[in-house]
Amino acid sequence: MTHDLKALFKPRSVALIGASNDSRKYGYWTAKSLVDNRFDGRLYMVSRTKADRIMGCKPYASILDIAEPVDLAVVGIAPKYIQGVIAECAQKKVKCVIVVSTGFGETGAAGKAVEKQLLQTARQGGMCLMGPNCMGNYSAAVNLNTSIIDLAPGPLSLVLQSGNFGIDINVNAKTRGLGYSCWATIGNQVDLRFHDFVDYIKDDAATRVVLLYMEGLRVESEADGRRFMEAARAAVQKKPVVAIKIGCSAAGVRAAASHTGSLAGSEAVFDAALRQAGVIRVESSTDLLDVAEAFVKCAPAKGNRIAVLTDGGGHGVMAVDKAERFGLAAPELSAETQDKLRRILMPHCPVKNPVDLAGTPEADMWVFDRCAAVLLNDPQVDGLIIVGLYGGYADLSDEFRRLEMDVAESLLKRVKASGKPVVMHSMYQPYRPACLTHLSQGGIPVYAAIESAVQAMGCLVGYQNSRQRLADENKAPAPFLPVDRKKEVDCILAAVRAAGRVHLVETEAREVLRAYGFVLPPHELVQSAEHAADCVEKMGKAAAMKIVSPHILHKSEADGVRLNIQTRPQARGAFDQLVTAARRYRSDADIFGVMVTPMLPAGVECIIGALHDVTFGPTVMFGLGGVFVEVLKDVAFRVAPVKPYEARVMLNDIQGRAVLKGVRGAAPVDEGALAQAVSRLSCLAAECGDIAEVDLNPVMARSDGLDVADARMVLIA
Amino acid sequence: MTHDLKALFKPRSVALIGASNDSRKYGYWTAKSLVDNRFDGRLYMVSRTKADRIMGCKPYASILDIAEPVDLAVVGIAPKYIQGVIAECAQKKVKCVIVVSTGFGETGAAGKAVEKQLLQTARQGGMCLMGPNCMGNYSAAVNLNTSIIDLAPGPLSLVLQSGNFGIDINVNAKTRGLGYSCWATIGNQVDLRFHDFVDYIKDDAATRVVLLYMEGLRVESEADGRRFMEAARAAVQKKPVVAIKIGCSAAGVRAAASHTGSLAGSEAVFDAALRQAGVIRVESSTDLLDVAEAFVKCAPAKGNRIAVLTDGGGHGVMAVDKAERFGLAAPELSAETQDKLRRILMPHCPVKNPVDLAGTPEADMWVFDRCAAVLLNDPQVDGLIIVGLYGGYADLSDEFRRLEMDVAESLLKRVKASGKPVVMHSMYQPYRPACLTHLSQGGIPVYAAIESAVQAMGCLVGYQNSRQRLADENKAPAPFLPVDRKKEVDCILAAVRAAGRVHLVETEAREVLRAYGFVLPPHELVQSAEHAADCVEKMGKAAAMKIVSPHILHKSEADGVRLNIQTRPQARGAFDQLVTAARRYRSDADIFGVMVTPMLPAGVECIIGALHDVTFGPTVMFGLGGVFVEVLKDVAFRVAPVKPYEARVMLNDIQGRAVLKGVRGAAPVDEGALAQAVSRLSCLAAECGDIAEVDLNPVMARSDGLDVADARMVLIA
Repeated sequence: MTHDLKALFKPRSVALIGASNDSRKYGYWTAKSLVDNRFDGRLYMVSRTKADRIMGCKPYASILDIAEPVDLAVVGIAPKYIQGVIAECAQKKVKCVIVVSTGFGETGAAGKAVEKQLLQTARQGGMCLMGPNCMGNYSAAVNLNTSIIDLAPGPLSLVLQSGNFGIDINVNAKTRGLGYSCWATIGNQVDLRFHDFVDYIKDDAATRVVLLYMEGLRVESEADGRRFMEAARAAVQKKPVVAIKIGCSAAGVRAAASHTGSLAGSEAVFDAALRQAGVIRVESSTDLLDVAEAFVKCAPAKGNRIAVLTDGGGHGVMAVDKAERFGLAAPELSAETQDKLRRILMPHCPVKNPVDLAGTPEADMWVFDRCAAVLLNDPQVDGLIIVGLYGGYADLSDEFRRLEMDVAESLLKRVKASGKPVVMHSMYQPYRPACLTHLSQGGIPVYAAIESAVQAMGCLVGYQNSRQRLADENKAPAPFLPVDRKKEVDCILAAVRAAGRVHLVETEAREVLRAYGFVLPPHELVQSAEHAADCVEKMGKAAAMKIVSPHILHKSEADGVRLNIQTRPQARGAFDQLVTAARRYRSDADIFGVMVTPMLPAGVECIIGALHDVTFGPTVMFGLGGVFVEVLKDVAFRVAPVKPYEARVMLNDIQGRAVLKGVRGAAPVDEGALAQAVSRLSCLAAECGDIAEVDLNPVMARSDGLDVADARMVLIA
Repeated sequence: MTHDLKALFKPRSVALIGASNDSRKYGYWTAKSLVDNRFDGRLYMVSRTKADRIMGCKPYASILDIAEPVDLAVVGIAPKYIQGVIAECAQKKVKCVIVVSTGFGETGAAGKAVEKQLLQTARQGGMCLMGPNCMGNYSAAVNLNTSIIDLAPGPLSLVLQSGNFGIDINVNAKTRGLGYSCWATIGNQVDLRFHDFVDYIKDDAATRVVLLYMEGLRVESEADGRRFMEAARAAVQKKPVVAIKIGCSAAGVRAAASHTGSLAGSEAVFDAALRQAGVIRVESSTDLLDVAEAFVKCAPAKGNRIAVLTDGGGHGVMAVDKAERFGLAAPELSAETQDKLRRILMPHCPVKNPVDLAGTPEADMWVFDRCAAVLLNDPQVDGLIIVGLYGGYADLSDEFRRLEMDVAESLLKRVKASGKPVVMHSMYQPYRPACLTHLSQGGIPVYAAIESAVQAMGCLVGYQNSRQRLADENKAPAPFLPVDRKKEVDCILAAVRAAGRVHLVETEAREVLRAYGFVLPPHELVQSAEHAADCVEKMGKAAAMKIVSPHILHKSEADGVRLNIQTRPQARGAFDQLVTAARRYRSDADIFGVMVTPMLPAGVECIIGALHDVTFGPTVMFGLGGVFVEVLKDVAFRVAPVKPYEARVMLNDIQGRAVLKGVRGAAPVDEGALAQAVSRLSCLAAECGDIAEVDLNPVMARSDGLDVADARMVLIA
């Protein structure tokens, strides 16, 4: 269920349970924070101490003593009392409870049991619950601060699992003059989880950027992962979502015997899921704020072509050096623009991109402004990055100080008029000179590191690309899937389950794939050498023969494959050899027979797989076969299902994508067909939720389609 | 020639030519800098102005008017006067000249011509020359500052090509209280180049770390690249060398038609050369100082196993997350150490690694110190990274402020006693609280970003590894090479040159390889179908036949290869087909005949190549064949020659190294044999300097050796 967080972020009344006058106690700090922040609504202090007044308010012994309704209760009392207090809150018909107390799930099994009871009480009372083990929340809309951190209003909203990172990020935000609309530390996520907050904040008009700090999703079932994905996707279509995600989710993916499974570190899936939802992932609190600042201050990017303007040659080269890493292009400027710049600059100044002022500003500071104007007017320039020494000229003389400020003022006007994003680096930014502060407040974020400036611009571009991709994805057609697929597959799987198995044999796996619209060459399951010979003869072309046994999962290990069988005697011989080898491999193996199929034309070896991720559930995987997957782990993941449109994007996520385009003179493979296959398999995994793993390996991709050469399928045990 | 820079860094007397009283002029700023910095030796002002005094000194009209000897002249006058002034310096027997003036090579061809004359005059006068277009130098040893930047003494030495980066890096160094022993901006490097400085500074006792900012080496011949490599290698064996290298060298590698050449962006070679010499490469001025600070303050690392101690759970996870990227391991701590930590910490505190204090410091600040003691005493811990909130407790109360300082004091003692490196992150570092400054000054560098702390520790470890590698390399045996190799090869190459060719045919290339000790299967060059048939029969096993023509460089394009020839008729047929195909491909092709060699056993396809890099000259390359090299550009470079020891390290530089270890049950290849082959080819390239490209592709590597299946070789045109 998704909760409405109105009671959390826009309560009309708040009760603090555990308020205290003792300045060493959390209950005092919280009370002080609530009062100092001048909460717009009614504030009640609840305390068992006999104090006359707490923060100037008359305390109540119990929440039940308050006459008026209470929307939000903040509970900061010892765990042993918590159950009773929560019950009272329920009785009082409180809408939302924040439990800031620690000593619950994070301490072990006993704590987890208490959490369960808490949740039950809250649910029964119709309350939602944030925490426990959290640091409260903040809401600029009603001047609410239930945290003990000094938070200010602003355009960011931040949801995090760690109070310490809340402090860390806030230190960082303050130095930039940035604050929050909504802020919440969600602690052990017993009830309210990331998706609830993302869902609420996406519609909060005061929020320009959503920031997340995640250690992992709390998942009792994969539904939680999916709800987060849905909430994030919906949010990204309205505003940027930037996330730090540390560590790997606790349990890792379900242990799996096959290739696909063994590659699937859940970290890789988590990373893919964030990108799939259009969430921008960064690595530190500094990066988080660097990027957030650009989103708050800059116009949206319309393309990835940047111009670099510098007064320090090396700085310009460094900026261009880093552009590609962040998805930007710094192409040579048009002849027309170069001509215009030539007219402004001295002959020795490079004007191709980067544009290097090379000492001219000392003679005429306005070159910055005039060159910026030329660059911003160039329709082939989507954004401008200024790097170097600006802000340091002031140290040379007062005249320069005034000039720097005047030029900054003019720059800001030009940038605003252009509607293009402009970011800046200055090596003097650590000293925060007045003109840089002016630029930063006026709409040009200024960074102390070149990489930060380039990364920020890259994220502006990346966000617009993601938004476009999500919009295209929404409009893109679903894959073609047969109507009765689910019924057919349920039938096959039920039979496998009925036989006490979780591993499908290849003939069963092939039927499942056919039900989902995969076109596979015909196969026959034969029980005698003679029948095998008949099949091969009937086929009229070379055949492959494979042992079919639920006890032989890796056929090649059991010498269970014979290729290029062309004659009746060969077929008979192969049958006998396969059965003998199978018996030798495992004497008690249940042998269903031998599968006979036509040999397939060669192609590019690919792997299409599915797995059941512990956080996100059904997940689809694509990679190139052979060394690519085995040695380089060069695979792409998507949470299932994906449309063919999305699958096609996924094909191009792998490092070895050039192989699909054709190497050594080979024709490109049919990416449309591959994308359909990935999409179909993703639908199979998503619709039939009890599939643990699928491994189509190899899939032979050709310019005129593809063939699935082998298929393994395992159900959840 | 390598210069002795004593006159530059320890002159007894300095003359400033172009000194001025006009406070808008460079000649004034430089004079002021020299005087303000209280140069230890005699200082002379030379000026054509009629000023009575400049900076309190009586100016001379010409350097020739000075009676005493002058070691160093700093010249800052307009380019048109420079030639005469330099001639006067030569006449005066000045030892070293710094030309800070601009308007030379950087402005175009005319400027380059003037530079050449300058250099000639300097050489004739036995002077060395720094610049032109530079910003002077600094030497703490004699209080010399010929730059206009405010530089302070300290343990760093910095050599750079960009004055602006000099300012940038200095801003960064100052905030850390770090200064320089030697500092030099080397400008257009007409005479003095990076290697001269590295060579000098390595023996400067006051320098703890050598820092370089490079835009590219000035190379008139590859000898410059090699001299830099030699100087850097020698320096790294004494002290760490950390470099920023931006952009790519101007010319790029010599255009090349073959695989090897086309992969060899000189940026990749430059990067490999830096690593080969043991130079640590970083990406920004902040990284440069982060790493330098650790080298200055920390004990050397003895291994890569780190412990992470944190008071912020998320921060600890983030530190461990990043360890691997910087070559560090954060293994689970021993049971014994965990037990000891358990006795200090509360039950809910994680102690495996990271060790998370999880709220205990508020109750007892000394847990930091006690846990650090346990970790530093663990012989399985090579270094300690402390991350989180330290330095911020002071904000809570004065008692905490005192405690933080006391604990810091104790920590410093422990760290010193342990002899292990300890670095720290604190989110409060931007506020520079007193206890963090104390820690930082006392020997524990404190960073504002977790990544910076982990990177710094990683570089400490990386440096020790590089030093060890260089020492091992020095001791390692040279490759086995036949005595007469060079003579034999010169003979073959002379014949090729005599025929007006630069491309060797395969039979010639094979002879060259044999001369360098490569064992290749026998080949015969036949001119008739009948002779081909005889050869195949005589060989008694399957043969490969290839067209041999200096006009057919890519044999497969010309349908010039036949494989698996087993009978006389097949051989005859193949011969005729090959010749016909060659004629069809190019009717005027000079056909030397057809080469017959035995078919080779299969193996792992590798490429061993050589190329002539514009900066470093002969360079050797290794990669896996097929998609690895074509799609992933997964290759490793080394400046030639390399010993087998170094070649073996190189084999493991590629991403696909697991293929060499054996995948899908294959036996590992004989890396020793591969390393010998790489080493031999590197010696060939280094000793026979006129080889443009060699492409041994494929080399079939097996568990019992290797075979070169095809060889291409091109001389420098």
